Amino acid sequence: MEIFKTSSEMRAWSDAMHRSGETISFVPTMGYLHEGHLSLMEKGRSICSSLVVSIFVNPTQFGENEDLAAYPKSIDRDLQLIESKGGKAVFLPDREEIYPENYQTYVTLESLPNHLCGISRPVHFRGVATIVTKLFNIVRPDVAIFGTKDFQQLQVIRQLNHDLNFGIEIIGAPIIRESDGLAMSSRNKYLKPEQRPSALSLSQACLKVRQMVEAGERDASGLKFKIKNFIDSFPETRVDYISICNPNTLDEVTEIDGEVLFALAVEVGRARLIDNILVGSS
Amino acid sequence: MEIFKTSSEMRAWSDAMHRSGETISFVPTMGYLHEGHLSLMEKGRSICSSLVVSIFVNPTQFGENEDLAAYPKSIDRDLQLIESKGGKAVFLPDREEIYPENYQTYVTLESLPNHLCGISRPVHFRGVATIVTKLFNIVRPDVAIFGTKDFQQLQVIRQLNHDLNFGIEIIGAPIIRESDGLAMSSRNKYLKPEQRPSALSLSQACLKVRQMVEAGERDASGLKFKIKNFIDSFPETRVDYISICNPNTLDEVTEIDGEVLFALAVEVGRARLIDNILVGSS
Repeated sequence: MEIFKTSSEMRAWSDAMHRSGETISFVPTMGYLHEGHLSLMEKGRSICSSLVVSIFVNPTQFGENEDLAAYPKSIDRDLQLIESKGGKAVFLPDREEIYPENYQTYVTLESLPNHLCGISRPVHFRGVATIVTKLFNIVRPDVAIFGTKDFQQLQVIRQLNHDLNFGIEIIGAPIIRESDGLAMSSRNKYLKPEQRPSALSLSQACLKVRQMVEAGERDASGLKFKIKNFIDSFPETRVDYISICNPNTLDEVTEIDGEVLFALAVEVGRARLIDNILVGSS
Repeated sequence: MEIFKTSSEMRAWSDAMHRSGETISFVPTMGYLHEGHLSLMEKGRSICSSLVVSIFVNPTQFGENEDLAAYPKSIDRDLQLIESKGGKAVFLPDREEIYPENYQTYVTLESLPNHLCGISRPVHFRGVATIVTKLFNIVRPDVAIFGTKDFQQLQVIRQLNHDLNFGIEIIGAPIIRESDGLAMSSRNKYLKPEQRPSALSLSQACLKVRQMVEAGERDASGLKFKIKNFIDSFPETRVDYISICNPNTLDEVTEIDGEVLFALAVEVGRARLIDNILVGSS
């Protein structure tokens, strides 16, 4: 497995792969890999002849009061996991390689970030769109795979791929969960054992919403009110948002008519957790 | 010569060219071609095996009170000129192809646009950076050629190419002038014959600055004051800016020490004209 620390080496390798007829699937990560990431890699391996994974904790997608400095790391373990999943190359740049002195170019979206996580994380999606644009230009993949746990991120990337004409196939892969239902996340590391029941309230809320919609509930406000009360009944929880929205525009809906996205973000202790589920007939 | 109206056709052609070992040079234009554009095409032909030219009057780089609707057009003549210069393909999209419904992604630079033309044209360089990003992704050139008449545009594109990791070679080509010194521009069409002496004040100012700097003038403020008075002495002129700045950062300099950019923008009647010259030892 090749490990590249510079953009020029990474791109030269990708260009050579393309010239020799290989196809490239790409899984961008911030490291501290879990089963969710591994499922994206398996998907990538199954679609293209060469899998590339990047590991870069992107500072521009963290707000000032967020957990950039504390973000967990496990590079050696990550590299072993990528190799075990058949990764052909890893892009592992340092911060100076990605954001050199005098760096000043950013990619912004005008509508999708003004919903869900973008409201409490105002610079987050500018950082995501910028790093993904850069990584797409460096790795030059045919296919890129993202988890649907970060549903809004996936939609932002689909939109920027379309708007900026990258021509890459963007694939959303299902949420991978612990056996008790908790959606896998590098930030689950922040949870103390006694906070586990509170953390599980998110996935339980997703199931409750699905049940209620399947039972005929159509009133989005009423549903959100019930879920808010449910989450609030757990200790150390602070709801950031509870949303029932159009999965494409992320605009809130008042009546559940056709497929909608239920999504929520909840702080449990110092861990900010998110989860979501598509409900209603598609 | 191929003419492509859709991004997917254009990209498929470029990808096939690359696979067969061709190199692609690219000259993006807004049409109404003049000798300046043709010199960029000649440069492109001399460097790469395939020259691609785009023609698209990009609405996002025009401000609300600017000349988008009036911008001159001559498509049939343009296509003949491109063919005569050995162009292999022309990308000729309509507005809906480039900015479809729900378009929302923009590329912005934080520093370079806050100078020169960017001050009176606040959305201009966002539009330029966005369309160039899109065109780079659609045409996938090895080399792209821009005129130095739009010196700030060239620096914006160099910076975004570097910051967003396009890996394209960006070439700045010299200003092409009419026999009387007027820098070639599609907007010269707006000039009435009686406004010609006023229009020539820009290129004359460039020569005056070069003479004064060569004679030992070091005081940028004094120089700008003299040039302002010179331009104001011509009828129907309105100075937008007169700048003596660092060619890389575009920050104003107070003392001319080493190579500096002299640049100015002047409205002559309804034509907004720009010109520039690098002066001082490099």
